[in-house]
Amino acid sequence: MTGPRRLSIMGSTGSIGTSALAVVEHANAMAADPVFEIDTLAAGRNVDLLAQQARVFGARLAVIADETQHGALADALQGTGIQTAAGEDAIIAAAARPVDRVLAAIVGIAGLPSTIAAVEAGNSIALANKESMVCAGPMLKALARRKGVEIVPTDSEHNAMFQVMERREDVDKLILTASGGPFRKSSAAALKSVTPKQALAHPRWNMGDKISIDSATLFNKGLELIEAAYLFDMPEDKIDVVVHPQSIIHSLVAYRDGSVLAQLGNPDMRTPIAHALTWPDRRQPAGVEPLDLVALSQLDFEPLDSIRFPAIDLCRTALRHGKGAPTVLNCANEAAVAAFLAGNSRFLDISWVVEMALDRFVSGQMANQSCDSLDSIMAIEAEAMRLTRALLAEALTRSEGV
Amino acid sequence: MTGPRRLSIMGSTGSIGTSALAVVEHANAMAADPVFEIDTLAAGRNVDLLAQQARVFGARLAVIADETQHGALADALQGTGIQTAAGEDAIIAAAARPVDRVLAAIVGIAGLPSTIAAVEAGNSIALANKESMVCAGPMLKALARRKGVEIVPTDSEHNAMFQVMERREDVDKLILTASGGPFRKSSAAALKSVTPKQALAHPRWNMGDKISIDSATLFNKGLELIEAAYLFDMPEDKIDVVVHPQSIIHSLVAYRDGSVLAQLGNPDMRTPIAHALTWPDRRQPAGVEPLDLVALSQLDFEPLDSIRFPAIDLCRTALRHGKGAPTVLNCANEAAVAAFLAGNSRFLDISWVVEMALDRFVSGQMANQSCDSLDSIMAIEAEAMRLTRALLAEALTRSEGV
Repeated sequence: MTGPRRLSIMGSTGSIGTSALAVVEHANAMAADPVFEIDTLAAGRNVDLLAQQARVFGARLAVIADETQHGALADALQGTGIQTAAGEDAIIAAAARPVDRVLAAIVGIAGLPSTIAAVEAGNSIALANKESMVCAGPMLKALARRKGVEIVPTDSEHNAMFQVMERREDVDKLILTASGGPFRKSSAAALKSVTPKQALAHPRWNMGDKISIDSATLFNKGLELIEAAYLFDMPEDKIDVVVHPQSIIHSLVAYRDGSVLAQLGNPDMRTPIAHALTWPDRRQPAGVEPLDLVALSQLDFEPLDSIRFPAIDLCRTALRHGKGAPTVLNCANEAAVAAFLAGNSRFLDISWVVEMALDRFVSGQMANQSCDSLDSIMAIEAEAMRLTRALLAEALTRSEGV
Repeated sequence: MTGPRRLSIMGSTGSIGTSALAVVEHANAMAADPVFEIDTLAAGRNVDLLAQQARVFGARLAVIADETQHGALADALQGTGIQTAAGEDAIIAAAARPVDRVLAAIVGIAGLPSTIAAVEAGNSIALANKESMVCAGPMLKALARRKGVEIVPTDSEHNAMFQVMERREDVDKLILTASGGPFRKSSAAALKSVTPKQALAHPRWNMGDKISIDSATLFNKGLELIEAAYLFDMPEDKIDVVVHPQSIIHSLVAYRDGSVLAQLGNPDMRTPIAHALTWPDRRQPAGVEPLDLVALSQLDFEPLDSIRFPAIDLCRTALRHGKGAPTVLNCANEAAVAAFLAGNSRFLDISWVVEMALDRFVSGQMANQSCDSLDSIMAIEAEAMRLTRALLAEALTRSEGV
């Protein structure tokens, strides 16, 4: 590769975005010539951090989703020559600007339109927005194939599998590792009274709020199972989930000859991000501690308890149904997590709401509708939100009745 | 690949050779058309098993090293149309017959001439004879490069690294795992009175006698360190050894971006053999149990104790010196192991004899002689044997003096 690699980061102020910029900074500092160059930085509402990032990294364009903050962004970047824009459409347009790789790191289904736009425009993707693959997996894969575009998984688990993935027909099984979350050892009874604060305290990974709750319910692992199925064209019964509390083995691929290949490392998102940004090259990320197996001394593995954590079985159900079911599951989960974080529902309501939304969807009129366009997925999302709002209200009643 | 893959197995009656034939049998049984076809089977002295293998697998040629047994071999294969030959030269000639891959599985430096002959003839190699790489690494690598021949490592550790090896310039470090052998927890005092029977009882791998003793002294791991250095062009200070008693992670490669890639599997040589015989394809080997991390529950890692087990430091010393030093180390070890198995020396004499032989060699006249031909290596071997015989006699005196 000659010259710096041009990147756009959609979701630059979040956990993944800031880690990515740390990787960029370190790589550029370590090399004689810049390794990366930033085209676009896009964020939701954190205008101060966005403006600061744009200045420090010499971005060409900074985009804020919240249109009311366009003025503040323009003021902060006055005289820098950095272009500014605001609104959802501006983010979609920015993702389509030609670059070497777009890091899709907007959280939730909100990231889907810009991911699709980037692939449509022929941009290679570092995919950290798992909801894009969950809701639009088959469509995104087909689009990427048609455009000749690489989708490099950036979630640590999928990046791990990608690193050790050879020919698909030789693969016997994927083994997705799960830390087990903060409630791995909690009793079923204790789960009833979990607070947002408890659920946000993840033992291994330092992440955003939504994904931290998903890690506590294990919906994160279930969504990753759906993502892995679509990314690697594997049926759900060929994907095992193993609880591995230390989060050192980030996932494994088992081959027909008995070989199991794995990627290991300290739980630090800079490693998969650096890999996904530079693949097929590799570069040294900022200050990631080398893995020290002797210091770790022990790696543990446990079965998944699907009684206390029904999320993964629900995700398997959604995946087997296919079509809009993963989108419904994802939307119901997003809404239920938001309600939980806002103090408007309980921890165990999350899986109940998702289960009921999925039940009602698969027996409803839209169950077999295809998901081959953003519009069709958005229509399913709207239906999912309708079902979920009703269910969240029901959950509240149930909770008062307890 | 079209048509069956033609194999020759040098060392077919040993532990690796019989596992390889189990892989061949299973692969052929599982496929509609034969996956493998056997050209040559060569063995040292087990004429009955060799003849039986040649019949069962329909070999074209069976070669026995022990010339006194040629008659017995010919008798046993009369009427089958299978050619027979005997003697070291016949084995060398057999290795040069054009095939798709030669499995080099003769134990010890005895395997070197046929390995060189196979590469010289342009045959691709599955290398299970680590002594070839230890004694003639730089020369074999240069020869293979010149001939455009692949050397696929078949030792489980090197095969593991080979499976996850990407560009060498991106590699930070190799991490060689060691089971620790049967005396991992023995006191230094207890090692003084170890018997051959105790040393042959390896906790994880079922192997031949010589390699089992090498596993008990950890010379096996040290030889593997030298082998890895030559195979993958890595300096010794970039190769860590980690004790991993379960032998599930067969070795790891650490990259500059913090990723550590590893191959895992149950301790069953059929997996690396199947991989090395079919690479770049993969096939299902006979009856290898799928890895079950949950059933294993725990993987442990410990530092290496180089006080009780000086073998690896001795191997590092030999590697740093280079030239004939690894050959001297290997020959001294082979002779000392033979003496130990015959009851003519003690367990701890092995490392003492190796250390002293190495000392005397590097301060002697042949220390800087080059090793770029079989003849030059054989001259160093002769010198090593001279040094070692004297040292074994000294060891006996020392032992009587105790």
